[in-house]
Amino acid sequence: MQFLSDNAARVHPKVWEAMQAADAPDKPYDGDVWSQRLDAVFSELFGRECAVLWASTGTAANCLALTTLVEPHGGVICHREAHIESDECGAPGFYLHGAKLLLAEGEGAKLSPETIAGVLEGITRGIHQVQAHAISISQVSEYGLAYFPLELQRIGALAKEHGLGLHSDGARFANAVAHLGCSPMEAAGPVDALSFGCTKNGGMDADAIVFFDGEKADLARWRRKRAGHLQSKGRFLAAQILALVESGLWLDNAKAANAAAALVAEGAGERLLFPAQSNELFVRLSPDERAALRAQGFAFYDWDAELVRMVTSWDTKPEEADALGKAIAAL
Amino acid sequence: MQFLSDNAARVHPKVWEAMQAADAPDKPYDGDVWSQRLDAVFSELFGRECAVLWASTGTAANCLALTTLVEPHGGVICHREAHIESDECGAPGFYLHGAKLLLAEGEGAKLSPETIAGVLEGITRGIHQVQAHAISISQVSEYGLAYFPLELQRIGALAKEHGLGLHSDGARFANAVAHLGCSPMEAAGPVDALSFGCTKNGGMDADAIVFFDGEKADLARWRRKRAGHLQSKGRFLAAQILALVESGLWLDNAKAANAAAALVAEGAGERLLFPAQSNELFVRLSPDERAALRAQGFAFYDWDAELVRMVTSWDTKPEEADALGKAIAAL
Amino acid sequence: MQFLSDNAARVHPKVWEAMQAADAPDKPYDGDVWSQRLDAVFSELFGRECAVLWASTGTAANCLALTTLVEPHGGVICHREAHIESDECGAPGFYLHGAKLLLAEGEGAKLSPETIAGVLEGITRGIHQVQAHAISISQVSEYGLAYFPLELQRIGALAKEHGLGLHSDGARFANAVAHLGCSPMEAAGPVDALSFGCTKNGGMDADAIVFFDGEKADLARWRRKRAGHLQSKGRFLAAQILALVESGLWLDNAKAANAAAALVAEGAGERLLFPAQSNELFVRLSPDERAALRAQGFAFYDWDAELVRMVTSWDTKPEEADALGKAIAAL
Amino acid sequence: MQFLSDNAARVHPKVWEAMQAADAPDKPYDGDVWSQRLDAVFSELFGRECAVLWASTGTAANCLALTTLVEPHGGVICHREAHIESDECGAPGFYLHGAKLLLAEGEGAKLSPETIAGVLEGITRGIHQVQAHAISISQVSEYGLAYFPLELQRIGALAKEHGLGLHSDGARFANAVAHLGCSPMEAAGPVDALSFGCTKNGGMDADAIVFFDGEKADLARWRRKRAGHLQSKGRFLAAQILALVESGLWLDNAKAANAAAALVAEGAGERLLFPAQSNELFVRLSPDERAALRAQGFAFYDWDAELVRMVTSWDTKPEEADALGKAIAAL
Repeated sequence: MQFLSDNAARVHPKVWEAMQAADAPDKPYDGDVWSQRLDAVFSELFGRECAVLWASTGTAANCLALTTLVEPHGGVICHREAHIESDECGAPGFYLHGAKLLLAEGEGAKLSPETIAGVLEGITRGIHQVQAHAISISQVSEYGLAYFPLELQRIGALAKEHGLGLHSDGARFANAVAHLGCSPMEAAGPVDALSFGCTKNGGMDADAIVFFDGEKADLARWRRKRAGHLQSKGRFLAAQILALVESGLWLDNAKAANAAAALVAEGAGERLLFPAQSNELFVRLSPDERAALRAQGFAFYDWDAELVRMVTSWDTKPEEADALGKAIAAL
Repeated sequence: MQFLSDNAARVHPKVWEAMQAADAPDKPYDGDVWSQRLDAVFSELFGRECAVLWASTGTAANCLALTTLVEPHGGVICHREAHIESDECGAPGFYLHGAKLLLAEGEGAKLSPETIAGVLEGITRGIHQVQAHAISISQVSEYGLAYFPLELQRIGALAKEHGLGLHSDGARFANAVAHLGCSPMEAAGPVDALSFGCTKNGGMDADAIVFFDGEKADLARWRRKRAGHLQSKGRFLAAQILALVESGLWLDNAKAANAAAALVAEGAGERLLFPAQSNELFVRLSPDERAALRAQGFAFYDWDAELVRMVTSWDTKPEEADALGKAIAAL
Repeated sequence: MQFLSDNAARVHPKVWEAMQAADAPDKPYDGDVWSQRLDAVFSELFGRECAVLWASTGTAANCLALTTLVEPHGGVICHREAHIESDECGAPGFYLHGAKLLLAEGEGAKLSPETIAGVLEGITRGIHQVQAHAISISQVSEYGLAYFPLELQRIGALAKEHGLGLHSDGARFANAVAHLGCSPMEAAGPVDALSFGCTKNGGMDADAIVFFDGEKADLARWRRKRAGHLQSKGRFLAAQILALVESGLWLDNAKAANAAAALVAEGAGERLLFPAQSNELFVRLSPDERAALRAQGFAFYDWDAELVRMVTSWDTKPEEADALGKAIAAL
Repeated sequence: MQFLSDNAARVHPKVWEAMQAADAPDKPYDGDVWSQRLDAVFSELFGRECAVLWASTGTAANCLALTTLVEPHGGVICHREAHIESDECGAPGFYLHGAKLLLAEGEGAKLSPETIAGVLEGITRGIHQVQAHAISISQVSEYGLAYFPLELQRIGALAKEHGLGLHSDGARFANAVAHLGCSPMEAAGPVDALSFGCTKNGGMDADAIVFFDGEKADLARWRRKRAGHLQSKGRFLAAQILALVESGLWLDNAKAANAAAALVAEGAGERLLFPAQSNELFVRLSPDERAALRAQGFAFYDWDAELVRMVTSWDTKPEEADALGKAIAAL
């Protein structure tokens, strides 16, 4: 019973179907009918005009988005535990040509206007210090916590006040929307660019980069090609994304994953580091307790000496999640 | 009837099967059983120990290979019409941190020891001029011509003499082997790294980077992750490659494409810019002649005022290739 | 008798004086009174508002100027023999984060609207090819030839038409003005940024970067600091530049150097590759002739098998130049 | 009375003399006799063979040194308040092509084997996290504290154990040697490269980069040229360095600066953040106290709400330092 990562989940059957339907000769790169449909589909989803590119990984999606917001001599304010800081092997340094990540604190790996302002206030040495060009948040955060629309509005206002770009790493954006019950636009907030994850949510290898400014999207096209991410048969990536978004499957999948996480969370109770707001849980377990669960067939990730990480996915079986929750409760 | 590009071809049914067989939870990234099998499979194919990484585009494969051979202050000798020079939107500049492409001449977009030596002899200003660190050839060349094993040996000897790395862009390596009738190792020659194309040869979005030096492969792993090319469900890329290589399908597909090209070439006769050595043909056609062929339903690419490019693929129907050849002959 | 390079010339006594006068505690970096005076002095010189930064080498000046005109995924059209292409060890690749130099032809290492247009017309593959963002010319060219104001106007018009930035490498800008007899603004032409050389013209280690757009100058400040070129005692660089520009010494020095070159040119006659338009001459000499001149005490640079390069400077003694001219004539 | 920065000090008369003596035509770049003498002079100073390059700023010296120790995908462990982290506007990100600074803690901005090991222990995610390639310390630290030889040996042993390069930012290396009373080699410790500051110690715009491995020095030569730091009249930089090092002036100047700082420190007593170990002092002063001192003509830098920074230099008059010390004591 697998709770290691949503990366390890299967590809949704409807995604397979869509990919196979796309297996017909068409224009190469992103000239095909599938890729060409993305803008309209996302514009409808967000109720606002946007331009959308596909990318094969979340790291590429995040970095390509940031290239449109940050110059090489600038910096990006992000949380000390943000994925771009600690899990992308320095990819932002590569894509942004040495721009700096400016680290902020915040409970549950979430930024707040206050902690962002703290970073800005520390930039006092003019030309000698890297200046912030953008802010990057994660919806949901690395600890699985969602930003509420009002929080996003406040961060957006701060960004605007300081002339900073705003990016959201939405590798698990669907789980945030499913939890918040708000519209996608409310869950995105006033961002310039959103990495809209699909790979962890039933896709194979396709995430979308949603730009609310067409010029930035056009800039990202050059950077995508230059990074070797413009696939010649891009129709297969577009098809994955469309299969998830057009039918509402993206939200159904996330709801299923969140529901499974809720079942685990119910059993975990006080052991939870944070309340369940998505499909990721951090649970306090001793070595003996971990061993006991593993002996019952549950697989999960050792986060550190105190915590394990448990992740559900679209195809987690409710009975397995329930079993895990009960097994934790019985410890 | 499509002769625009092998990029536009369908994914081979056996590749689909292999991908679906890989749709089971496994270790993420390249820890899965499929990715782990690549080294052994390619070592057997080449009769020599090698370490293999997957990448989702030929541009990424080429650039990741080159990062292991060229320092940022160095240069890569390549043909003036090489793909890395003229079709990758400056990706080598990005991946190599500003290293320079040093352009050489050569009939049919092929380099020779003589034209390479010409570039080396022009580097006379010491510290003021970029020094060559590596040579990159394309097997087959941008005009579809194959390097013969002896040619590769001579270029390899020159590289060794000057302490230069040697890379081969094998986006259509299979077509070269099919044409040459030699072993894969002979068609690769004494290279440090080979981009082994699969996407144009029945795959979906997977090329292999074959390193004949394990340390270089390990270096490339960091660069791949940093470039956002380490897919979390890498098993799907590995499965594509294995489906093509393990069964010999890679060579069968290339033979089929080459055979179709030969049918076209037979009709094109004297109009051919170069003899057919792979699945790419450059044919002299006037605007009226192009229009006449298109009116018969043939699609191809206008290369320039004098030439069109016609490309066959693994799934080109022999009768369509034959029809195109006859239509050209009848002009 | 030294005709190797104007780099080898002495520092002008007035420059020494100015540097020593600047040896008083002042604000560090470019906050001192000397650095602060540059904008006004150059605005007067050019009759147009400009913002000026110092840099310690021509390579740094060129590259910092270009960072304001070219994005990492773009290209710079320059002559195949431009200094930025062949004598800066790939510095533009470093400063521009892998942007590409797009090489154009042209007699005497000069670009023309026609040869520039030729490069632009070759950029036909859209996203797959690096697009031009800027043009860089050298006033005077690598063969010592000056662009006439009308030529600059035509190139500027082309740049404007295509939305390209325009940079001028003026390592020997003073020699161009001295030759043309026009105003500095006419000799600069409609450029966005001009590298205004001082080091070869009586300075020690200071060139000016003249921006005709204050925002670009401010951008270059970040890049200068980031490149380690913001000297803490910048007053010494500013003092050098001011000593040359405020008193007209920059033009006097260049006139002296040009006059010396004219004396050599008179003797060289038909042996000259190009007419003398600055302080650099390329002279056809056989090995025996070179040896004969060297035996008489003349030092110069072997350009290639056919040509030698002879360069005069502000402190070349007229009698030595005359002697060289006569010695050539007597060969 | 100026205690703002050693950057604001005058150039030593003997440095002026040496520069003027170098004002004779010689080979350009670093082919001149002054530049050529550096290796021998420093090899004698350190009692160990070394290869030495000049650079015009400490930022350039640090970054060029680091380019030889860190690959673009790697990281440099340094203190959270290191100059390379907080005062170079991201220059290491530029020079190292996006390599990451990995921040460690430590009293007085000094690293210890323990805090370095803490960073190393936090690198647990393999390919997903940037790996350390080197350690950079500052001798003296940003708070003016010296590393003792034994401390350096322990850090060096750790570096060796983990295969990490070791760099020392010695912008105030002379002050460290003057304080420690040990040999230069002992004060450098087992480093691969040392930035040996001269600009703050009586020079104009020249620091030395001392490599204890000739191959790394040769690598740095390419990077220096490529960064636009290879000055054509490099003899003037070499002359400054030689004037300071050959005669022992570098140590005399540092001793004078340290002695002046000691006079200030005597008066500051308990107000000192750290004991005086060089020419930099951090003194606890309230706004009123600062105003009182400034009213008496003392200039210094407001570090933060609690602290001011006072820096002496080679030409600080002992009576002025004494006066400042007494003025603080009298507060």
